[in-house]
Amino acid sequence: MKIQKMKIPAILGALLLAGTLSAGAQMNSDSLYKEPYRPQYHFSPEKGWIGDPSGFMYYQGKYHMYWWGKVESTDLVHYQQITPYAMTGTDDNISYFTGSAVIDKNNTAGFGKGAYVAAYTVFEKDSKKQAQGISFSHDGKTFHYYEGNPVLDLWSTEFRDPTVFWHEPTQKWVMVVAKALEKKIKFYTSPDLKSWTWTSDFGPAGDSEKSWECPDLFQLPVDGDSDKKRWVMVVSVNWAQEQYFIGDFDGTSFKLMENHPAEPLYVDKGLDFYASRTFQDFDGTLDSKISMGWVATWDYAPVAPSKYGKGFWSIPRNLELKTYKEGVRLVQKPVEQLQTLRHKPASVKRALSVGTQRLPGFVPDENVYELDASFSTDVSNTFGLNLCVGEGRKVVVSYDTDSHNLVIDRTHCSDVQIPKFSRMAYARVEPVDNKIRLHIFVDKSSIEIFANDGKDVFTLLTYPGEAQTGIELFAQKKGTKMELDAWMLKSIWR
Amino acid sequence: MKIQKMKIPAILGALLLAGTLSAGAQMNSDSLYKEPYRPQYHFSPEKGWIGDPSGFMYYQGKYHMYWWGKVESTDLVHYQQITPYAMTGTDDNISYFTGSAVIDKNNTAGFGKGAYVAAYTVFEKDSKKQAQGISFSHDGKTFHYYEGNPVLDLWSTEFRDPTVFWHEPTQKWVMVVAKALEKKIKFYTSPDLKSWTWTSDFGPAGDSEKSWECPDLFQLPVDGDSDKKRWVMVVSVNWAQEQYFIGDFDGTSFKLMENHPAEPLYVDKGLDFYASRTFQDFDGTLDSKISMGWVATWDYAPVAPSKYGKGFWSIPRNLELKTYKEGVRLVQKPVEQLQTLRHKPASVKRALSVGTQRLPGFVPDENVYELDASFSTDVSNTFGLNLCVGEGRKVVVSYDTDSHNLVIDRTHCSDVQIPKFSRMAYARVEPVDNKIRLHIFVDKSSIEIFANDGKDVFTLLTYPGEAQTGIELFAQKKGTKMELDAWMLKSIWR
Repeated sequence: MKIQKMKIPAILGALLLAGTLSAGAQMNSDSLYKEPYRPQYHFSPEKGWIGDPSGFMYYQGKYHMYWWGKVESTDLVHYQQITPYAMTGTDDNISYFTGSAVIDKNNTAGFGKGAYVAAYTVFEKDSKKQAQGISFSHDGKTFHYYEGNPVLDLWSTEFRDPTVFWHEPTQKWVMVVAKALEKKIKFYTSPDLKSWTWTSDFGPAGDSEKSWECPDLFQLPVDGDSDKKRWVMVVSVNWAQEQYFIGDFDGTSFKLMENHPAEPLYVDKGLDFYASRTFQDFDGTLDSKISMGWVATWDYAPVAPSKYGKGFWSIPRNLELKTYKEGVRLVQKPVEQLQTLRHKPASVKRALSVGTQRLPGFVPDENVYELDASFSTDVSNTFGLNLCVGEGRKVVVSYDTDSHNLVIDRTHCSDVQIPKFSRMAYARVEPVDNKIRLHIFVDKSSIEIFANDGKDVFTLLTYPGEAQTGIELFAQKKGTKMELDAWMLKSIWR
Repeated sequence: MKIQKMKIPAILGALLLAGTLSAGAQMNSDSLYKEPYRPQYHFSPEKGWIGDPSGFMYYQGKYHMYWWGKVESTDLVHYQQITPYAMTGTDDNISYFTGSAVIDKNNTAGFGKGAYVAAYTVFEKDSKKQAQGISFSHDGKTFHYYEGNPVLDLWSTEFRDPTVFWHEPTQKWVMVVAKALEKKIKFYTSPDLKSWTWTSDFGPAGDSEKSWECPDLFQLPVDGDSDKKRWVMVVSVNWAQEQYFIGDFDGTSFKLMENHPAEPLYVDKGLDFYASRTFQDFDGTLDSKISMGWVATWDYAPVAPSKYGKGFWSIPRNLELKTYKEGVRLVQKPVEQLQTLRHKPASVKRALSVGTQRLPGFVPDENVYELDASFSTDVSNTFGLNLCVGEGRKVVVSYDTDSHNLVIDRTHCSDVQIPKFSRMAYARVEPVDNKIRLHIFVDKSSIEIFANDGKDVFTLLTYPGEAQTGIELFAQKKGTKMELDAWMLKSIWR
């Protein structure tokens, strides 16, 4: 849980309370999920604040997701909000911060066979202490505070966001948790989720100037080879980026792979992807690793102009490790199930004209669509797309074949003024086979760009006016060829 | 003095030593100041490292400048290096960090009437302590370490970069010095430069997440009215930006003006302007306030590929305060004396074509020139200049009339690879009278852009190949009119 000293818990508290109160109230179905800026194929709660993904698991044929509210999905496309608040049993002095959840199949903790156990940071409002606690549930919907909490306490105000998982080879529970200001990830093991033993620290490393939080640790095959697996550790960095490390984990400590770059590797190169977590598979039937992140940054999340439930999560991403010239890297792709939402398809194939033109053949009437565009890069040029064009505003997605930079300028995209919002995202994106492919998802107030088949991903917020639905193409020189497929996407809510 | 924990003093020491050793050696006049990337109208030392401007004064008809080496100038265009190292009298355990210098006209310190007194940070290599010390000189060229040093000691490892000046109304010396990690500027006063009394603290304020250092404090008229003066405090922020505050100073404490923005005000919006200092006028004959900064950042200064003296200073800037719609702001203009270097003038007046074209009529044979370009902004467009074009590389200077963003992309400008170098600078630059004016100085490895008559300044390094001297114009749409004057600038060294 990212927390801005004293400010955020209060806001969180108020918003969570608002969510709780609204749970039993009659929903206004005329306007719900039709509010300005409300994403149409991303999960956002009916009302109230949503924070970091917490307790992500696949169990009994369903994806379970908590932000200590709960949502479920069977297909990662449609979502059912189960409760706005799952936590019970403690007093007003305690806030539940980010964490994870497991199924205790063998009743190691004594809460019952197959109990849901959530592990999270217990924030004491008076002392500001952050310690780790657990709660248990028999239905996954109501969690009871464990009376022996906290289960792990360093008397620190900067110790948070545990990910707990079962490590099969050593037959132990593992907890990965951040010492934020020290830029360390601490590793603990436990036989019963209640008593924890410190085993090692990792860090500082990579991007270590600012606070570390929200660690996740999971295993992925390299190049699809399940005999060749590596562990990936994802660490969120104060407050708007995630870095990842690739290495090995033996149940007690994490070691970087040989030749790991000293420069940070970022999960997402946009401006608003944070605190992602992967699904733990308690059925053992998933054939891929999937993650979702919080689409926001603490720089402006509290003042974002959304009139609906405050905040949302990214579209689910399939994670892979692939070997490139420069080494093994994380690759992320939108889950294929999203394709079931496609309608009104269009295709455009042409050489780009010099200057700026409307995209022919695809004219969205709202910003709920998908573009899959491929541009040739063999001719020296600067080209790209303007999205959300209208009312004198736009989001500029620009690629330069000389510098190999993809630039996303959302400094002039919004019909509202938000402090610290006016920024650009940019990063080097290498062409593949003399092409740059931009797979773009636009959903009301968000843009997710999967470049180069998911090697480089850019997620960012935008707050266009309702009439800002135009799409333009531009190029500075002749000679760039483009192939583009486009679809409107159906709302999962209406 | 910016310092990266243990690393930099060692490098500094080695380079300063190199400078010292080379002082008496025969210069190779065939190659000196003709080295690759060596600026031709900026000051850089013959050999060795140059750091923050320190001890900047106007005295006896000359501009005196120290980096604890010394350079003098009579016109702020031509420079004479007096010595590569002015400091004497202490042992190897002491490094001289950034500071200032004054003329003690009334012999308050007892070193003699009219003695030069330098005040700087004494860095103890063994203890890492940073305290303030003084040295005195009778010729301004050789400074003697004061045996009573340090004169101000908080037993801190993060206390540095004093600016000392005489405050006429209170008849006291004032020292302004940074407590870096606390993001505070501390104020002290003294009758004799030796005993110092704490009077107040300022900060944290503005940009206060990272270390503060190199404070400067000076008075400027507002809108040219010398009856309406304000004080400006400039503070460098870890390690690549300077912010400034506008307010009042009574000899003991600095107070922000009413309605001072909470958001930081940055002196320079480029990537490489730091630690600037203004000239103190001991003759009382200057009619303007002038500053220079260090063109570098600690992110890559130690590994910059300059084959000449390591580093250089910006072109001198005239400082003003002006009232805008949003309030009083700092304005910086290149000193007019630089115009004496102009030759081979060219003028271009035309509507920009759609696409990318060579700039007609001005074809520099080396990157030592000045452009003064004005573009109309009444038509929606994205346009700009590519500088240092060649060998498939360029520096892109781009303006968008919708977002009002000026973007300088130097991610693909260099013929060398430098870690952390590949970045963009961008900031909002409001048009004036439906025009955007870009006054651009290119000098081998630097670009300084004074936008909007000096309201927004962008300084950045670039390391183009020798053949990268092209200039291009580009526009995405029709309708932008441009007027451009261009000059080659004479070298001050050859």
